[in-house]
Amino acid sequence: MFMAALGVVASCAAPRAVDPLPSWNDTAAKRAIVDFVTKVTTAGGPEFVPAPERIATFDNDGTLWAEQPMYVQLLFAFDRVKAMAPQHPEWTTTEPFASILKEDVEGALASGERGIVGIIAATHTGMATDEFSQTVSDWIAAAKHPTTGRPYTEMVYQPMLELLAYLRANDFKTFIVSGGGIEFMRPWTERVYGIPPEQVVGSAGKLKYEMRDGKPVLVKLAEIDLIDDKEGKPVGIQSHIGRRPIAAFGNSDGDLQMLQWATSGSGARFALIVHHDDAEREWAYDRQSHIGTLDKAWDEATAKGWTVVSMKDDWKVIYPAAK
Amino acid sequence: MFMAALGVVASCAAPRAVDPLPSWNDTAAKRAIVDFVTKVTTAGGPEFVPAPERIATFDNDGTLWAEQPMYVQLLFAFDRVKAMAPQHPEWTTTEPFASILKEDVEGALASGERGIVGIIAATHTGMATDEFSQTVSDWIAAAKHPTTGRPYTEMVYQPMLELLAYLRANDFKTFIVSGGGIEFMRPWTERVYGIPPEQVVGSAGKLKYEMRDGKPVLVKLAEIDLIDDKEGKPVGIQSHIGRRPIAAFGNSDGDLQMLQWATSGSGARFALIVHHDDAEREWAYDRQSHIGTLDKAWDEATAKGWTVVSMKDDWKVIYPAAK
Repeated sequence: MFMAALGVVASCAAPRAVDPLPSWNDTAAKRAIVDFVTKVTTAGGPEFVPAPERIATFDNDGTLWAEQPMYVQLLFAFDRVKAMAPQHPEWTTTEPFASILKEDVEGALASGERGIVGIIAATHTGMATDEFSQTVSDWIAAAKHPTTGRPYTEMVYQPMLELLAYLRANDFKTFIVSGGGIEFMRPWTERVYGIPPEQVVGSAGKLKYEMRDGKPVLVKLAEIDLIDDKEGKPVGIQSHIGRRPIAAFGNSDGDLQMLQWATSGSGARFALIVHHDDAEREWAYDRQSHIGTLDKAWDEATAKGWTVVSMKDDWKVIYPAAK
Repeated sequence: MFMAALGVVASCAAPRAVDPLPSWNDTAAKRAIVDFVTKVTTAGGPEFVPAPERIATFDNDGTLWAEQPMYVQLLFAFDRVKAMAPQHPEWTTTEPFASILKEDVEGALASGERGIVGIIAATHTGMATDEFSQTVSDWIAAAKHPTTGRPYTEMVYQPMLELLAYLRANDFKTFIVSGGGIEFMRPWTERVYGIPPEQVVGSAGKLKYEMRDGKPVLVKLAEIDLIDDKEGKPVGIQSHIGRRPIAAFGNSDGDLQMLQWATSGSGARFALIVHHDDAEREWAYDRQSHIGTLDKAWDEATAKGWTVVSMKDDWKVIYPAAK
């Protein structure tokens, strides 16, 4: 009783960590992050933001994990085509499926957006959400990156994991807002990033509720509900979150509108772009890249004073130590 | 230092409240709620559910607040028609607007679903989300219920407020899943129910990101994105939450599919229906009512042993004390 009473009176907060961002070099980017978090969490300060309004949104591909040489979800789709091929004998003579089955990635990509949409429709729709979720979980537990040989879930950026944890320790609610498929991310984001399914926003198809063998299921339809990229990101944010983020994190032109939306609200705001300039430890690409093009958003970041992170100069390490 | 160390060691939990549901009579409904919460939160027990999976979804109209003599959002729309009429001289001779302007509610409703859709489109679309949110906030702060004269936000059910708080105290995450408009609810659900905007699911129109005077806005379009009712409720749940609730609360046939969806998962599940049978303190309506029809869902509740709450017998009070 005496101890319990003391427990209520004494502080429940853990002692302050020495450095919440140990994988960040002590450069301007890190200082900008810490300054922003400090000012919005300083009670009584001019830029204090109440905890429920501390919403932070993160792009996924190229911002939280690697997106080279190709989006992970596309590699998943290619693997699904191979796994499903026995049930689709017609694929051996139909593009882009035939190229995938011959391990000819360039040939498959030559089919363009139309071909990619066909691959996604064939591998991501028609099944129940629970079934798709299980397929993703099984795949991501076993799949390995084509050049590093590591599981994709270990090709996440250690400095960004620390940033997510640092924001949450300061009562931010962290969301993913990605052009990737919402149902492709949800099975593993809680384990890998500490972000639960209800805080994942992504591209989505329509769903249909129906009874199968007397049990309700939600069937994934081919009809598109939201492309959560570019102008779609603020739309996804409003639809899922319903309030404007005070901080947003991206790496490409696909994130520009999210960064505009977050920073155009009143009060303290923060926008950060991860620049892939480390060919040795990761990949180096920006204005001319087909994946993760960083061109207009880079110009706007410069003009508006957003924080641009150099992976080469600002990060001590890229990936977590191998498990 | 000594105190701080004790603080970490001693329990941080508040002392157990004597009765978390004081407005509930000690009947089977209350016992079913407490039994369910106890078993899913008992660590090491056979039906324990980890905190992140403790998702509870609540219908709004007729479950958390009154829906008679008409949905509150429809009364809002009628008031908006009157406020906007000076800019729409043609409305004086166009139905259903002309009837609304003559205070002829029955005449307006006689326009049927097509007329209602027209009223919603005229009053809920075309503006920016921020502007609509402000309009709702202003309206709900001033509007009064036509028969009780109380603010709508005081015509919420006290026993349900206690239930929401009880679930959250047991690490449930509480969501609204309503046929009502998502942007109509978000401006006040945090204050009234303790449910933040990102935990509100509702019917929604498409949004469009655009620049107005150099500032980004999200414009509410007339095109429908989701009707979050009946089969739409599990769809809205999957889209926004991404995992199946373990408990769901409703009052009408519009909630049936949500209750089916929640209860068809594995492990402990809970479904509850509020039955409006208290003509004296609230309203009495069920199978024959046009608003909040409770017919098929009542039969299924009986067949499956879901909890059916009698407002008359199970609740000591209906509304919170007037402020």
